[in-house]
Amino acid sequence: MPAAVIDGKAISHNPGSRSLRDQLKADIAKLKEAQPAVHPKLALIQVGTRSDSSSYIRLKQKAAAEAGIEFALFQFPDTATLNDILSQIQILNEDNSVHGLLVQLPLPEHIDEALVIDAISPKKDVDGLHPVNVGKLVVRGSAPVIQPCTPKGIMALIRSTGITIEGKNATVVGRGDLVGAPMSLLLTAANATVTLCHTKTSDVVDHIKRADILVVAIGQANYVQDSSKKSGYRTVGDVDYAAASKVAGHITPVPGGVGPMTVAMLMDNVYLVAKGSSQ
Amino acid sequence: MPAAVIDGKAISHNPGSRSLRDQLKADIAKLKEAQPAVHPKLALIQVGTRSDSSSYIRLKQKAAAEAGIEFALFQFPDTATLNDILSQIQILNEDNSVHGLLVQLPLPEHIDEALVIDAISPKKDVDGLHPVNVGKLVVRGSAPVIQPCTPKGIMALIRSTGITIEGKNATVVGRGDLVGAPMSLLLTAANATVTLCHTKTSDVVDHIKRADILVVAIGQANYVQDSSKKSGYRTVGDVDYAAASKVAGHITPVPGGVGPMTVAMLMDNVYLVAKGSSQ
Repeated sequence: MPAAVIDGKAISHNPGSRSLRDQLKADIAKLKEAQPAVHPKLALIQVGTRSDSSSYIRLKQKAAAEAGIEFALFQFPDTATLNDILSQIQILNEDNSVHGLLVQLPLPEHIDEALVIDAISPKKDVDGLHPVNVGKLVVRGSAPVIQPCTPKGIMALIRSTGITIEGKNATVVGRGDLVGAPMSLLLTAANATVTLCHTKTSDVVDHIKRADILVVAIGQANYVQDSSKKSGYRTVGDVDYAAASKVAGHITPVPGGVGPMTVAMLMDNVYLVAKGSSQ
Repeated sequence: MPAAVIDGKAISHNPGSRSLRDQLKADIAKLKEAQPAVHPKLALIQVGTRSDSSSYIRLKQKAAAEAGIEFALFQFPDTATLNDILSQIQILNEDNSVHGLLVQLPLPEHIDEALVIDAISPKKDVDGLHPVNVGKLVVRGSAPVIQPCTPKGIMALIRSTGITIEGKNATVVGRGDLVGAPMSLLLTAANATVTLCHTKTSDVVDHIKRADILVVAIGQANYVQDSSKKSGYRTVGDVDYAAASKVAGHITPVPGGVGPMTVAMLMDNVYLVAKGSSQ
């Protein structure tokens, strides 16, 4: 039996359904009505002109507009210094009208990403990448925190299948900061038994075979050349979709799986910060 | 063939050998010679009078004296309020003569441990339990940080066997904040493939059987009644030692395995903070 497709695009913003985006739009409208002084606002810093980054930023800008979130873009040339970026972060950290603040990654090589992320106020870190927010994913009994967008989106997709996560064996392939590592923490918090595989794993196939839940997040490079698309790029997944869909119970397509969820969860994080600040 | 015993007591403070404690004592003496103004100092806050806590504190006090670390104990009755503790932490955070600061756990039930740990300056958090320090164990490429004492000690014991960690399958049983969860992070950072088991794991025996490296850290309750010991307590391990030693290649005894390493690593953390502050 072929795998059921988990349609992230539909779940995140299928028009007319009670999708996550519709729900969020309604929640934000309600928040503004109850607290007219609160205008949820996302500030984004872009360094350089990578075309993939610009595409992602346009998606975020569009999603913010749809949700009723103000959006401010601060663009720096790729010759900007670390201090330029840190100064802008400091201003936005202190600006009470800004609820969410993120720096579009990756940064040019001469900028230390860890220092940039550390400088963002953990309370405005809507990407959920600041060490204090990552640490709170590990520490049990911590106050609820901002969760990193992509893993949060994947959790929502898994939950959308109705499958019980507790007690399942979950294999995560890839231990990157953006997806793999925090994904393993969210799955553990949801009571799955998680095995975290990476480039040094000697028997990754064994770990994949044993998985009830499999999340593959190997690379940041999700684009390969494809002349059939107008943009010259085709989005592909980390998994051989055709082969995997024959053995999996559920599967997310690429594109239209995790990607739209990431943006939806970012907007949800901005809403949660704005809501918290209004209390 | 019976398992080789990993003697944590000997590794941590065997007199006469180049043990960790001897090495640390020499390093601290050298630091004081080079920087006469620096006197490494550990401050410890105790709330209440639990006898197990008092025993641990005496061990720390003794180890500090041996290493050449100043030790200051701040005792509060178990009726102390959260604010009492937070005020003391604030004073010690700002006291430049104090390099390491820890609050002995567990705290009385009416005190929120997470709030107390959050209040400790991450730079002085020699227990390595502050979320920002835990988060930096996850985030790759972060600056070196203070590592939590017990997992750091277990890593040193594993390394003492000469076994290569990279590429091995490691199973950690227990996901507590003090040992299990950070242990899984340190093993992943050392390039093991880690499976983190817990109370909701459905097939823990399978995961244990597949492990090249097994760390069992189930409970905080490491003491059971035993009238044969003067104190009325006997320290026992989480593993059936007699049975496990028949199948394992190496094994740590209880007592004399991980315990002494934890205290040695605490002193090492105080030294590292003091050394950093002198640069």
